[in-house]
Amino acid sequence: MMTSGKQYKVGVLGATGTVGQRFIALLAEHPFFVVHALGASQRSAGKPYIKAVNWKQTQPIPSAVREMIVQECKPEHFQDCAVVFSGLDADVAGDIEQSFRLAELAVFSNAKNYRRDPHVPLIVPLVNTSHYSMVPQQRALHQPPLKKGFIVTNANCSTTGVVVPLAALERAFGPIESCIITTMQAISGAGYPGVPSLDIVDNIVPYISGEEEKIEWETLKILGGIVQGDDGLKTFDMHTKQPLRISASCNRVPVIEGHTECVSVRFARRPPPSPQQVREALQAYTSEAYTIGCPSAPRHTVYVHEEPDRPQPRLDRDYQSGAGVCVGRVRQCRVLDIKFVVLANNVAIGAATSSIINAEYAVLKGIVGGHA
Amino acid sequence: MMTSGKQYKVGVLGATGTVGQRFIALLAEHPFFVVHALGASQRSAGKPYIKAVNWKQTQPIPSAVREMIVQECKPEHFQDCAVVFSGLDADVAGDIEQSFRLAELAVFSNAKNYRRDPHVPLIVPLVNTSHYSMVPQQRALHQPPLKKGFIVTNANCSTTGVVVPLAALERAFGPIESCIITTMQAISGAGYPGVPSLDIVDNIVPYISGEEEKIEWETLKILGGIVQGDDGLKTFDMHTKQPLRISASCNRVPVIEGHTECVSVRFARRPPPSPQQVREALQAYTSEAYTIGCPSAPRHTVYVHEEPDRPQPRLDRDYQSGAGVCVGRVRQCRVLDIKFVVLANNVAIGAATSSIINAEYAVLKGIVGGHA
Amino acid sequence: MMTSGKQYKVGVLGATGTVGQRFIALLAEHPFFVVHALGASQRSAGKPYIKAVNWKQTQPIPSAVREMIVQECKPEHFQDCAVVFSGLDADVAGDIEQSFRLAELAVFSNAKNYRRDPHVPLIVPLVNTSHYSMVPQQRALHQPPLKKGFIVTNANCSTTGVVVPLAALERAFGPIESCIITTMQAISGAGYPGVPSLDIVDNIVPYISGEEEKIEWETLKILGGIVQGDDGLKTFDMHTKQPLRISASCNRVPVIEGHTECVSVRFARRPPPSPQQVREALQAYTSEAYTIGCPSAPRHTVYVHEEPDRPQPRLDRDYQSGAGVCVGRVRQCRVLDIKFVVLANNVAIGAATSSIINAEYAVLKGIVGGHA
Amino acid sequence: MMTSGKQYKVGVLGATGTVGQRFIALLAEHPFFVVHALGASQRSAGKPYIKAVNWKQTQPIPSAVREMIVQECKPEHFQDCAVVFSGLDADVAGDIEQSFRLAELAVFSNAKNYRRDPHVPLIVPLVNTSHYSMVPQQRALHQPPLKKGFIVTNANCSTTGVVVPLAALERAFGPIESCIITTMQAISGAGYPGVPSLDIVDNIVPYISGEEEKIEWETLKILGGIVQGDDGLKTFDMHTKQPLRISASCNRVPVIEGHTECVSVRFARRPPPSPQQVREALQAYTSEAYTIGCPSAPRHTVYVHEEPDRPQPRLDRDYQSGAGVCVGRVRQCRVLDIKFVVLANNVAIGAATSSIINAEYAVLKGIVGGHA
Ligand SMILES: NC(=O)c1ccc[n+]([C@@H]2O[C@H](COP(=O)([O-])OP(=O)(O)OC[C@H]3O[C@@H](n4cnc5c(N)ncnc54)[C@H](OP(=O)(O)O)[C@@H]3O)[C@@H](O)[C@H]2O)c1
Ligand SMILES: NC(=O)c1ccc[n+]([C@@H]2O[C@H](COP(=O)([O-])OP(=O)(O)OC[C@H]3O[C@@H](n4cnc5c(N)ncnc54)[C@H](OP(=O)(O)O)[C@@H]3O)[C@@H](O)[C@H]2O)c1
Repeated sequence: MMTSGKQYKVGVLGATGTVGQRFIALLAEHPFFVVHALGASQRSAGKPYIKAVNWKQTQPIPSAVREMIVQECKPEHFQDCAVVFSGLDADVAGDIEQSFRLAELAVFSNAKNYRRDPHVPLIVPLVNTSHYSMVPQQRALHQPPLKKGFIVTNANCSTTGVVVPLAALERAFGPIESCIITTMQAISGAGYPGVPSLDIVDNIVPYISGEEEKIEWETLKILGGIVQGDDGLKTFDMHTKQPLRISASCNRVPVIEGHTECVSVRFARRPPPSPQQVREALQAYTSEAYTIGCPSAPRHTVYVHEEPDRPQPRLDRDYQSGAGVCVGRVRQCRVLDIKFVVLANNVAIGAATSSIINAEYAVLKGIVGGHA
Repeated sequence: MMTSGKQYKVGVLGATGTVGQRFIALLAEHPFFVVHALGASQRSAGKPYIKAVNWKQTQPIPSAVREMIVQECKPEHFQDCAVVFSGLDADVAGDIEQSFRLAELAVFSNAKNYRRDPHVPLIVPLVNTSHYSMVPQQRALHQPPLKKGFIVTNANCSTTGVVVPLAALERAFGPIESCIITTMQAISGAGYPGVPSLDIVDNIVPYISGEEEKIEWETLKILGGIVQGDDGLKTFDMHTKQPLRISASCNRVPVIEGHTECVSVRFARRPPPSPQQVREALQAYTSEAYTIGCPSAPRHTVYVHEEPDRPQPRLDRDYQSGAGVCVGRVRQCRVLDIKFVVLANNVAIGAATSSIINAEYAVLKGIVGGHA
Repeated sequence: MMTSGKQYKVGVLGATGTVGQRFIALLAEHPFFVVHALGASQRSAGKPYIKAVNWKQTQPIPSAVREMIVQECKPEHFQDCAVVFSGLDADVAGDIEQSFRLAELAVFSNAKNYRRDPHVPLIVPLVNTSHYSMVPQQRALHQPPLKKGFIVTNANCSTTGVVVPLAALERAFGPIESCIITTMQAISGAGYPGVPSLDIVDNIVPYISGEEEKIEWETLKILGGIVQGDDGLKTFDMHTKQPLRISASCNRVPVIEGHTECVSVRFARRPPPSPQQVREALQAYTSEAYTIGCPSAPRHTVYVHEEPDRPQPRLDRDYQSGAGVCVGRVRQCRVLDIKFVVLANNVAIGAATSSIINAEYAVLKGIVGGHA
Repeated sequence: MMTSGKQYKVGVLGATGTVGQRFIALLAEHPFFVVHALGASQRSAGKPYIKAVNWKQTQPIPSAVREMIVQECKPEHFQDCAVVFSGLDADVAGDIEQSFRLAELAVFSNAKNYRRDPHVPLIVPLVNTSHYSMVPQQRALHQPPLKKGFIVTNANCSTTGVVVPLAALERAFGPIESCIITTMQAISGAGYPGVPSLDIVDNIVPYISGEEEKIEWETLKILGGIVQGDDGLKTFDMHTKQPLRISASCNRVPVIEGHTECVSVRFARRPPPSPQQVREALQAYTSEAYTIGCPSAPRHTVYVHEEPDRPQPRLDRDYQSGAGVCVGRVRQCRVLDIKFVVLANNVAIGAATSSIINAEYAVLKGIVGGHA
């Protein structure tokens, strides 16, 4: 199904936050989507957006939303929206997103609340759009069954960075057996006000609450398949047929935007691929989202750097508007097989851009609107 | 042998550099050592220290050296020194340190040049002071044999941080089999002017030339033993009886001082120790340098943090004047056995303090002066 | 009156905050004062200090207070204290400090609440300890009159930095007529969590709420005299006999500690002093606090740098434990007369150290205890 | 004269430097100009650009120049260029730019060498394009007279920021009498490698060699007029009819890009304009460069912020691609008349963009090509 210039009204929940602002900025000139409604907390509701938001983007507030009145996050204010993007705090996202789904709205969420839900796909659009096949069951199992409403989440920002090259490697070389990841994560990943400056100027904080567990768990859901039981019910298989052990260590660093991750992997297949084969596989990897024409999907899903000292967050985070992933320093690991460095823009592909590509995909596939 | 208040004259080579300045600062009130001679490049020679140096320490230049004339790095200017500390650039350290050894001087070097020399011990004073047993052979094999001259090096700053907890773990639990390390290294590790600010403000550089190789190689020399061949000759065994595979990924981060390292280890012994056992072994670890009374050796060789978000470089790098190593977040690793975070002050125990403790040890053991 | 080794019990209000922590650290080995009671909010009260505080100092928590139970800020818990230091939030400092004064306690406050009170001296201990002469009237005018209780405040951190050299210049050269100040203030000046890192990494915020007004007003109170009216009542003259116009522009910069200020002054006297005369006057300036033996008063009230690029916060903020003020780049101003750069440690002389010297002075002068 | 789609070949000298890279980036899609030749030092000459440059921009190297061979900076390699942009180091710019002028090339330089030349206009394109009237005399006085060659310089980056609002204020309210400026300058202003990170992380350097003199002198040349003597010779009058006293204090701060400046001004006219009048005058100010259609000239020459805490370098430096100047916090000054904060992108309008707009203007006015 093509969109043939049709424009879809969209809503943004948590529109005043760090991810919300990025949604607003990204949607300003979007070929499919037009921002139609903004939701935030009671503190903000009733105010024009420009008064409600503490705008921290480097481009000005798009003129179309400057004076738009922020609403409370209630479905009635978003009934005309074909798509609702959520950048809500996890404290409130659970109930609000549920109420939107019940109101037959298509919710694309950045919050963690439904990521572990057995009927909600956790989709990194450069990796596992095939998991959309879970949406019909999600609707059907509701009481009463839903016609159009559903929730799709995207992954945690640090998971996103690592899962893209891992997917590329599994596609080319078969299952990965184990993976050790050390992240160096940007402060924008904690939202605003987020990390106090006294904690991070001239410093590293070698801990981010809940982050390591997210990487270790979400990766399995994303890279795993969907299996159908004898009862006809689908479940996420969590990569269980080929168990994948992941160990993550997460650090906060004084970088504004862009998560850098050092990754070592061991393949099931012996002998493992060479660094050069890995580089080629990463460079060759393409996403279905790009192939079917999602306008925000990057041409280079994975950009492979040859220079020894790249990727670097300040220089590489805005490549392709932050929609792809950069990999560098692909080389042998003396303990596992291969190691490399990943850079992913935590606010773009790690958050808002992922949701937007997921929604683009759903539009192109006719999933939005209940035609799936 | 006790020092009984005796003071030893010492020289500092590369006295104007980052490491050299730290030597000057640390030696200002030292119980054994009195700075007697300073050496640097021809640019600096002939000038009073205060004119030659671009002093970057937070305490003022010690008054005893302010007006001391900087010399060229020639042995004749250092003949009265019982000990010579070197913070020379690797470009020049090779020839200069050699000429000092030939002049029967005891050289304690930070430079990398002799670290791989088969007769030069590479000593992290909290770990392998036993390697001093190589010094007699180093002297004897010279043509003609040396009476007092020798070179001892300390390790690269990022090696030092990791090797201390690894030594503690091997002492408690037997051989480690493999180890994956990701470092986040301070800018002071690159000397001055070192890292351009445009490369590191709001950025990470995921590469430090030669650093990964140093960690992977030096660790084996330090943790390995010394074996005696049939010909009576001693060699460093490089941990070969129990092969140890190390894989390092090195990153430069916007931190002034203090290298943070995320480490995962696998023990040979099955089942491996629990996190709690590891914590206890680290906390209990003591160095011979401390036991025999080296004044700069830290009481807590390894300080184990219980808080989830420590150690942090800004808060913990000056604990015990940076002479110990801090470890935190000891926990299970899903791929190897145990993972944890290490912090070591790269300029203190990672450089100048290591040399000073090494020299204190040599004095206390009578190695300096040729009485070994 | 000498202290002859006598130790005074002291309390710290707001003991868990940025300034409170600095009080704890500074008082750990104080010759006069022993920490006896700690106060903080209800969130902290009842807990041992180590559990209540999010300790952010680079030295460990002094062992004497680690397990001390934090109290609510009620005078009954502080009755044995000869001195109470306050690092309370301005939201609550007003009522609490008043209740402590009424309970006949001597309060040395960092909060802004009483700085503009016509009976409360605003004392920068390197400048205007003579303003202690207001204390008897403060007590006497209370209903009923107080015997021992009083409040003394110290100045805002950015005021403190500039008022010290201005006092030195007025002492040497007579009244200053106008003064333009641009500050570059450290993030620790905003407390914890304070400035969000997203606002200050790779950034400057050219605004600090209320700060410019504080500098412009407090400086007049501090540098002005005290005049006695016909009714015998004393008032602060606010430098009115020789009107002094001050214009401040305040900026937040990504520096942990140490406020840097660019200052231009115009003297009433024509011709004005030369830069060299100014340098000499600054260097020669001494405080009465130092002269009478306050142990925390710095020997160099103003340290004058000759190097063109100093003072710098990272290098100079800890000189004399941050108790003095550094000045550099004294030179002609083409618009006013003379310009220079000041550095003052906002947490030390700009906050906790000022209160402590004020209290030391009050002890030595017999003001604490009601013997004034 | 219109360009009617005509494209001009241009050369870039110092093409590998900080400013040179910005030229390359800005010229990638320029409506008038096509990069035709690149010049740098002997180290770089002969290499394809991608090998010669240490590219530090956030967008990739434009494909048209990636493989272009870098030349030595000799006029023969640039003969086909209608315009030559120079981002050369001041050490070499003097001789090289002179040789290019003699070879009848039109040189637009960022270097300081000819800024004080009595025949070279120092043009900030948002301010004093009228100074192009000096070009004919510059050519005529050469021996032998030049037909097409000339040099035009733009100002120092910190001068540029302040001179734009000062010009706007003089246009609206008549002469300014005095001006005190404190700058907080980005590290990119020092080129690459430039400022060592050890000097600027968690620090301020309150000194930039030569910078204060540049602001104090260049501002007079730019804001002054051109007068014709009895001998028919034109000279820059340096604002002498209405003497303007300027006092600058320059600081380096840990900001990547964007110079922030706190400015206080006193007008000759009494009473002075109100803050509101100043805001309106700044907002209303337009440049001739914009009016006549220079494609890189910003629509808002001066963007006036109403929020109390703006402009901020990280948020505002890329507004209008850094081609305009942002002003905020316009308010009364208690010593002079009015104070405000300026932000100018040092690499864009403070360097490369200024040269490019100057060249666009020269093209539109027919000055390039000798038709002036
Ligand atoms: N920084 C760290 O954390 C660290 C840690 C462990 C080991 N190291 C090692 O320690 C050594 C010093 O490092 P650094 O960071 O202190 O470097 P640095 O700041 O660049 O200092 C280099 C010193 O070498 C002197 N020098 C240079 N050329 C010379 C010549 N031709 N003859 C004599 N002296 C010469 C310099 O004197 P002038 O001032 O006269 O040029 C200066 O004193 C290096 O080998 C480094 O790898 C450093
Ligand atoms: N950065 C700013 O914000 C700014 C603002 C206004 C004005 N400026 C001025 O602009 C100029 C360039 O500054 P920058 O920051 O771009 O400096 P930079 O990064 O150090 O670049 C210097 C350039 O000059 C070239 N060069 C050096 N020596 C040469 C030689 N002997 N022959 C030919 N080319 C040579 C270099 O080429 P190689 O790579 O081959 O060495 C490089 O391309 C300076 O005059 C500066 O004062 C800079």
